[in-house]
Amino acid sequence: MSQSYRVAILGATGAVGTELLQLLAERQFPLAELRVLASERSAGKRVAFGDETLTVEAVGDRAFDDIDIVLASAGGSRSKQWASVAKAAGAVVIDNSSAFRMDPTVPLVVPEINPDAAADHEGLIANPNCTTILMGVAVYPLHQVHPIRRIIAATYQSASGAGAMAMEEVKVQTQAILDGKTPPTNSFPYPLAFNLFPHNTPLNEAGYCEEEMKMVNETRKIFGVPDLRVSATCIRVPVLRAHSEAINLEFDQPFSPHKAKEILQSAPGVQVVEDWQANYFPMPIDASGIDPVLVGRIRQDLSHPCGLELWLSGDQVRKGAALNAVQIAELLAQRNWVKPASQRQTSFAAVGG
Amino acid sequence: MSQSYRVAILGATGAVGTELLQLLAERQFPLAELRVLASERSAGKRVAFGDETLTVEAVGDRAFDDIDIVLASAGGSRSKQWASVAKAAGAVVIDNSSAFRMDPTVPLVVPEINPDAAADHEGLIANPNCTTILMGVAVYPLHQVHPIRRIIAATYQSASGAGAMAMEEVKVQTQAILDGKTPPTNSFPYPLAFNLFPHNTPLNEAGYCEEEMKMVNETRKIFGVPDLRVSATCIRVPVLRAHSEAINLEFDQPFSPHKAKEILQSAPGVQVVEDWQANYFPMPIDASGIDPVLVGRIRQDLSHPCGLELWLSGDQVRKGAALNAVQIAELLAQRNWVKPASQRQTSFAAVGG
Repeated sequence: MSQSYRVAILGATGAVGTELLQLLAERQFPLAELRVLASERSAGKRVAFGDETLTVEAVGDRAFDDIDIVLASAGGSRSKQWASVAKAAGAVVIDNSSAFRMDPTVPLVVPEINPDAAADHEGLIANPNCTTILMGVAVYPLHQVHPIRRIIAATYQSASGAGAMAMEEVKVQTQAILDGKTPPTNSFPYPLAFNLFPHNTPLNEAGYCEEEMKMVNETRKIFGVPDLRVSATCIRVPVLRAHSEAINLEFDQPFSPHKAKEILQSAPGVQVVEDWQANYFPMPIDASGIDPVLVGRIRQDLSHPCGLELWLSGDQVRKGAALNAVQIAELLAQRNWVKPASQRQTSFAAVGG
Repeated sequence: MSQSYRVAILGATGAVGTELLQLLAERQFPLAELRVLASERSAGKRVAFGDETLTVEAVGDRAFDDIDIVLASAGGSRSKQWASVAKAAGAVVIDNSSAFRMDPTVPLVVPEINPDAAADHEGLIANPNCTTILMGVAVYPLHQVHPIRRIIAATYQSASGAGAMAMEEVKVQTQAILDGKTPPTNSFPYPLAFNLFPHNTPLNEAGYCEEEMKMVNETRKIFGVPDLRVSATCIRVPVLRAHSEAINLEFDQPFSPHKAKEILQSAPGVQVVEDWQANYFPMPIDASGIDPVLVGRIRQDLSHPCGLELWLSGDQVRKGAALNAVQIAELLAQRNWVKPASQRQTSFAAVGG
């Protein structure tokens, strides 16, 4: 990566935007420039980048000029609005929203799983849903050894999935309940403090919410198995920023838990956490703020000879969103799948456009 | 129930004991006497029973004399110690511990499922595990229509499952975290506030904890299906007193969600909670303090033609423990499966012994 890149972050003031800034600094992404963009009302705000402080600019028609890579985390409608502007300016957009994920012309990439898919980008790469990424990182290494036939997942999703304000709201709700007061609800339809409820995204006719259908459809696309059988129950829990998942897997043949553990111990992005004596397994407080997906309780499914059960916790803001996006940017840089603006002047048709 | 009974509560000062007292009052159980028993160190404490206050007596060799029904909720080792004493005194013990549940001579009873099993008691009836009761009440009505072939459960278990002190500890931990302090841990090995972790009961060689094996083995016994395929992941969550469960069911044939909902709407002990427009489904805060198991999100399993998914919340202290025990006592009274001490004098051999 001797080349360096002009990067813009769209949605720089949100929970994922803040993490994107941290990760670009931490991982020393080769930056020629870093532009931090947000909506008009956040313009002028200051955000931290390593030891520096950057000033947020309002996103606009010229905001992406000379930019090579856009890390977008501004919600689906803003992504739809600005992705074409950024693409037209010659940038590659790595979009964290759900707007383009199922578009057949847009690669949906988890670098540990399907890095090569990123090569086919037409100026836009989608970052998958957080629960989907975490599950994918944990189970794909097993799928490579024996194909997965069926996945049944139940999730334990933290407040961060609904943004920085939602995390704050859970704390405020919790204090209210401890003080004997009525908890306020703004980000969520029901109190999440000392409570939990099914993920409050719209339900389809079959009774599945959007979050659950993301786990089904995005997993199929990322794994490249269009008919993979997946069913999920997505639940929000009063945890701040790491998601957990109970996952039941059915393979085409018996899969020894011992062998599965060995595979996962050397799998990229995975850390096996299993102390059977101490009853110590993945927990969201341990997964918060770190890169790997913590996986444990890998055991034979008692109800099926070809089944395995496992349990994971992973940072929803980091690997579930910002880290995966930055890894995609690193992949583009490493494999030379993005052309810096300086080179675009002379070989315009090569990439993007 | 023109007859009335002499009842003793063993473990009257705990979370379940407190609830037993409330339920006996609320449901106007026909009492000739109510004796409240606990360990030596709780003797002399006062407990509420309706408008009355009762004084706790230390349990001892004569504590069960002339008692007809013992509601025991004092943990496995105390139950083992005192059940035989109570039985020898002629009482029927309804035991909330796990000590006797898998004993083939001891009925394991959920009145909505297998009331007739209680008839065969030999002075001892076991009250099942809380997660098992809640799941059983919700899925048995479906099993009666089309046999269940396989159950995969993931639980979201409240602090009350570890007792009244654990509930208090979660509040203390939560306040500590909100104040930026280190949360104390006594009842649990890890902080539960803003966190969650696999149920901290000992694990077997296959990697399943005791709580999970209770769901497997007790469900088989209660349903009378010794080879029923069940697998479970049991997780403690920072909720105070109601458990929730994501349940995946496989039947011997397709089962329409519409039909399943109709069946559950008229099932005993179940309340269907489904507002698809408002995204309103069972939540632990709604299940706390009420009798029915709340069931919702009844939907076709996307990964199996004969599968259904559902979601439930139920009060762990009430239907998960105390209410089920009181219902067993009511069953014994209604069906004349317990002989009051007054009658035992003249027809000693009839019941118990």
